[in-house]
Amino acid sequence: MTNWHLARGYRFAGVHSGLRPDPDRRDLALIVSDKPAAAAGVFTQNRVCAAPVQVCRERLPREDVRGIVICSGNANACTGEQGLNDARRMCAVAAESLGAKPEQMLVASTGVIGRLLPMPVIEPGIRLAASRLDVGAGALDAAAHAILTTDTRIKVATRSLSTRGGEVRVTGFAKGAAMIGPNMATMLAFVLTDAGVPANHLAGLARRATTHTFNCVSVEGHTSTNDTLLLLANGAGPRLEGDELVPFDDAVTSVCEELARAIAADAEGANHLVTIYVEGTRDDAEAHRIAKAIADSALCKTAIFGADPNWGRFVSAAGYSGVPFAEKDLSLWLGDIPLYREGAPLPFDAAAASAYLKNHREIDMRLRFTLGPGRCTFWTCDLTHEYIRLNADYTT
Amino acid sequence: MTNWHLARGYRFAGVHSGLRPDPDRRDLALIVSDKPAAAAGVFTQNRVCAAPVQVCRERLPREDVRGIVICSGNANACTGEQGLNDARRMCAVAAESLGAKPEQMLVASTGVIGRLLPMPVIEPGIRLAASRLDVGAGALDAAAHAILTTDTRIKVATRSLSTRGGEVRVTGFAKGAAMIGPNMATMLAFVLTDAGVPANHLAGLARRATTHTFNCVSVEGHTSTNDTLLLLANGAGPRLEGDELVPFDDAVTSVCEELARAIAADAEGANHLVTIYVEGTRDDAEAHRIAKAIADSALCKTAIFGADPNWGRFVSAAGYSGVPFAEKDLSLWLGDIPLYREGAPLPFDAAAASAYLKNHREIDMRLRFTLGPGRCTFWTCDLTHEYIRLNADYTT
Repeated sequence: MTNWHLARGYRFAGVHSGLRPDPDRRDLALIVSDKPAAAAGVFTQNRVCAAPVQVCRERLPREDVRGIVICSGNANACTGEQGLNDARRMCAVAAESLGAKPEQMLVASTGVIGRLLPMPVIEPGIRLAASRLDVGAGALDAAAHAILTTDTRIKVATRSLSTRGGEVRVTGFAKGAAMIGPNMATMLAFVLTDAGVPANHLAGLARRATTHTFNCVSVEGHTSTNDTLLLLANGAGPRLEGDELVPFDDAVTSVCEELARAIAADAEGANHLVTIYVEGTRDDAEAHRIAKAIADSALCKTAIFGADPNWGRFVSAAGYSGVPFAEKDLSLWLGDIPLYREGAPLPFDAAAASAYLKNHREIDMRLRFTLGPGRCTFWTCDLTHEYIRLNADYTT
Repeated sequence: MTNWHLARGYRFAGVHSGLRPDPDRRDLALIVSDKPAAAAGVFTQNRVCAAPVQVCRERLPREDVRGIVICSGNANACTGEQGLNDARRMCAVAAESLGAKPEQMLVASTGVIGRLLPMPVIEPGIRLAASRLDVGAGALDAAAHAILTTDTRIKVATRSLSTRGGEVRVTGFAKGAAMIGPNMATMLAFVLTDAGVPANHLAGLARRATTHTFNCVSVEGHTSTNDTLLLLANGAGPRLEGDELVPFDDAVTSVCEELARAIAADAEGANHLVTIYVEGTRDDAEAHRIAKAIADSALCKTAIFGADPNWGRFVSAAGYSGVPFAEKDLSLWLGDIPLYREGAPLPFDAAAASAYLKNHREIDMRLRFTLGPGRCTFWTCDLTHEYIRLNADYTT
């Protein structure tokens, strides 16, 4: 935690508002930019989208965002007009505490779906958070904890890069794509930089970075109503233009990738972080479809949990992904072990392949096609008894 | 078993060839039509399709099929040229035993993927089966057992209908869409009738019936390399034409529906048979997409296992199905209990809803949209600890 080099000009707080019953559990986070920041976002593709997502969509991109208020434990989804009013009220209360305008605030929520927010608890919680705002790792740590649901740990990533105008810092934190409550899968990510970058550039960058990072993670393929990435650039550091945006974009994408990997690794009940490399398809979209078919397959995921090098499951998942190919176009490796080459099974040491799965928490799978230059790196996890327990042994 | 009114002119056998180690386990089935039968089939959409599927696709539709040979325990998938030769050889050995031509035989396999068939065991097994062929329920029962993998019971459905020319019978049996080995999900179904119906009619009927029955079942959404429906009509009974094909088509579809339901109910580890009714979408295809999104969602399936009336999971699965709708277009019932109406959660008795899930093995879920005349009935099961155990705690 002490090694974080945080983006300048941001303050953080994470408090217990009372939304969650456990008094030791932080449930409300506030992020504030001292200067108005350019901001853009990427949101769930679900047709059923939560109230805070609707509010952020209305407001972004813009150049004068002052902060983000986030609650965990209640998703404020499927809550109708009252939910929209509550999401706007969260912004207004935070704005009032900061001397900002309501529309300068953004909002996110995660947790149980279909319940109205307990505003009498949340409003004082927001004011408490505003009174606790601070710079530095301790404050970020508190905010990063306050957005968690069934995550077992916080997810933070930072980068710094040198530019002509001086150092630029990028700070991101996220919560997991695991299910919540245990109700909804939600991914929330907040990426903050002190670079000066216009909002229209941030909007494109947020989309591109998401395509190659958060959209390449699947825990069980269930798209949340609340998924949100918010990207803020407050210009407390150097203003970036032209060529200098290229390494900046890379740094932001790299932060997103680290957070995406951390989400897959900390998915509910996961024993393994699985990285799926697909290459040699006609284009990147084909590679993504194949990787996602494998990542979403309960059969593939239980094979990994069971340390079973059952390559037929992976090949057949590729086969139903919708991407046309012939068996001879495909070769497959588990770690360094070749299992299948150009349409034919290879003799392999099943014990060694099983040991690879059993003895490594992070495992790689590689599918190589001979169709073109397309490629995708995708992260997922295994499907375990613990996943079932977390998501079944619960009654509302 | 004694109530089966079997289609006339068919004989059956189910024997232990030695493909499976357990000597009490039947693993090879033979179906024979005394007269050459019109035949058509529907097969897996997986790009990676097993050798027997390729052989059947080459041969169908045709008017002179004499029988079907089926082995369980080995899928003969991903086995290259040798696999194709072996599938053709199974047909040739069966044909020789029956005095038929090799191309008059069809073939199906189910089980472990990526292993060559043990032909020295299978060939005498086919001859043994040919020597045991018999009419009647006992012989069908033996064949129905011989095609099973992790199914816990046989699946048989029969119908009879009166026509101007006399009684027509339809006899179907199937094995489950649960995983096998525990390797591949495979559905095999064989539907036999003594009606006289041309192969080109059977081909259209097989496609239509599959759309509304077998394609409306999902255990975990993993499409097998081996899925096969074969439909034979041998004309041992009346020849059907014109109007009389309508009730005949209904009878065949009804047999397919009963088998499809039985497959979902006997899915690996399933505690519940879940029937999802979706209605009021713009067309049937939209209803099918929404139903399948729910049926394939691990979140929805664990909620049912856990007796958790967590309607947010069902609404959000509909939301990411790709079908455009607004929340106010949707209402949802669990059994008779309304949970969500036109975009707003309803107050409901959570204990009663949970008890409905807990106390019924067969449960219904209804999603009603206000967009048009589309509808779909879909069958699935819950996701349980037993599913994970069957599919993970295994090493090749």
